[in-house]
Amino acid sequence: MNKRPLILVTNDDGISAPGIRTLIEVMNEIGEVFVLAPDSPQSGMGHAITIDTTIYCDEVFTNKGDQSEFRCSGTPADCVKMAISEILPKKPDICVSGINHGSNSSINVIYSGTMSAAIEAGIEGIPAIGFSLLDYSWNANFEGLKKHIKKITLEVLDNGMPDGVVLNVNFPKLENNNFKGIKICRQARANWVEGFDKRINPQGKEYYWLTGKFINLDHGEDTDVWALENDYISIVPVHFDLTAHHFIKKLNLWDL
Amino acid sequence: MNKRPLILVTNDDGISAPGIRTLIEVMNEIGEVFVLAPDSPQSGMGHAITIDTTIYCDEVFTNKGDQSEFRCSGTPADCVKMAISEILPKKPDICVSGINHGSNSSINVIYSGTMSAAIEAGIEGIPAIGFSLLDYSWNANFEGLKKHIKKITLEVLDNGMPDGVVLNVNFPKLENNNFKGIKICRQARANWVEGFDKRINPQGKEYYWLTGKFINLDHGEDTDVWALENDYISIVPVHFDLTAHHFIKKLNLWDL
Repeated sequence: MNKRPLILVTNDDGISAPGIRTLIEVMNEIGEVFVLAPDSPQSGMGHAITIDTTIYCDEVFTNKGDQSEFRCSGTPADCVKMAISEILPKKPDICVSGINHGSNSSINVIYSGTMSAAIEAGIEGIPAIGFSLLDYSWNANFEGLKKHIKKITLEVLDNGMPDGVVLNVNFPKLENNNFKGIKICRQARANWVEGFDKRINPQGKEYYWLTGKFINLDHGEDTDVWALENDYISIVPVHFDLTAHHFIKKLNLWDL
Repeated sequence: MNKRPLILVTNDDGISAPGIRTLIEVMNEIGEVFVLAPDSPQSGMGHAITIDTTIYCDEVFTNKGDQSEFRCSGTPADCVKMAISEILPKKPDICVSGINHGSNSSINVIYSGTMSAAIEAGIEGIPAIGFSLLDYSWNANFEGLKKHIKKITLEVLDNGMPDGVVLNVNFPKLENNNFKGIKICRQARANWVEGFDKRINPQGKEYYWLTGKFINLDHGEDTDVWALENDYISIVPVHFDLTAHHFIKKLNLWDL
């Protein structure tokens, strides 16, 4: 039994989201599972951490499964920090985050709480994977994803991950989950064109909702967006050295 | 007068922070300035965006300077989106963020609201710079930074920036601002080792404060941490393609 890996499960949709419940089910087949997830939805939280306010963390009990569960008032990145520093009996063998309700392909990786949790684990030297399904619905069908998630997780446990790299896995939304296969990809160069929806509140004051349209101008066939549009599961290896190494030489020629 | 660049100024410490007031002063010497900054401190917000709640944005009036100013209830990334989509008369020629009260060197770039604003501008194709001083004090002395900030900003306006790259500029804290010069650097590989400070609230419930110790195990002399420790201003070119390109080939050999 000691050979069973210790698995940290988290997400950004909150501990009661169907996506994380599915992920817990799969992980219970693989190892000893600790869940430490936000007590409420934290989508779009990027790599936020809680500096200016207090954090609560409570054990919760569900009827189903052998996992230990904790809900936390912090962000996804806080949850990973809290788990490692305060809750887990030892450093986990892997951290899995998700399954996110919605895409984290392309530039969405920057805004994603799901991926920030995986990246936070990576920063702490823990192999990590973020899983997302391109279906924002609370009632999305996660069933057909299970065998793929199990396989990918077992591969990461077997092979390990290089220092400073985590995986960003996205599943296309398909009626029958008849995926064509898995593509290893680069992050597509795309962005959101914002439109703010301006409204008037009952007190007569203007306020806004952030909206936007996803624009992909990257026509490469090696991108995550291409893979997903063509019914493949996309895997992008993600790192957190943001240095634009290719520009250092040129910048040294500037008159600074 | 039409040749004066249109400059967007933002930050994460909030519109009334001394750091942004200094930055506005410098930018007023260079061009036409629009300020759109959070109405309250947003440190550690990473690349968070506001999806689940409403955003307010109001013009504010100060006695000093020619700039137009708006305060926004959103995150630093929201501020940039709002400015470009709703407030500015046209796309700005440059976006400057800061001056942050505290370091954004090394892995701090990931957690930084200051840098997320610069990165958001970069995503939208706008040359952008984040400025930070390694002094968390509200009363930090920003005076000696002004001439360097002006020079760096003018260089970016003159040279332009390559697509997908923004600058992360950090100033060491020196009594006399006697900087040794500027170093173009890579992001040091360092991380925070968390300690949570556990306390009991007046109702008897446990809560936590996030604390931590910055650990740099990167002994390279080409890093931002090295430059700052040796009294240089550090400039790291930062990009937001998070693909770990070096790992794609190997990942393709996995049995997925």
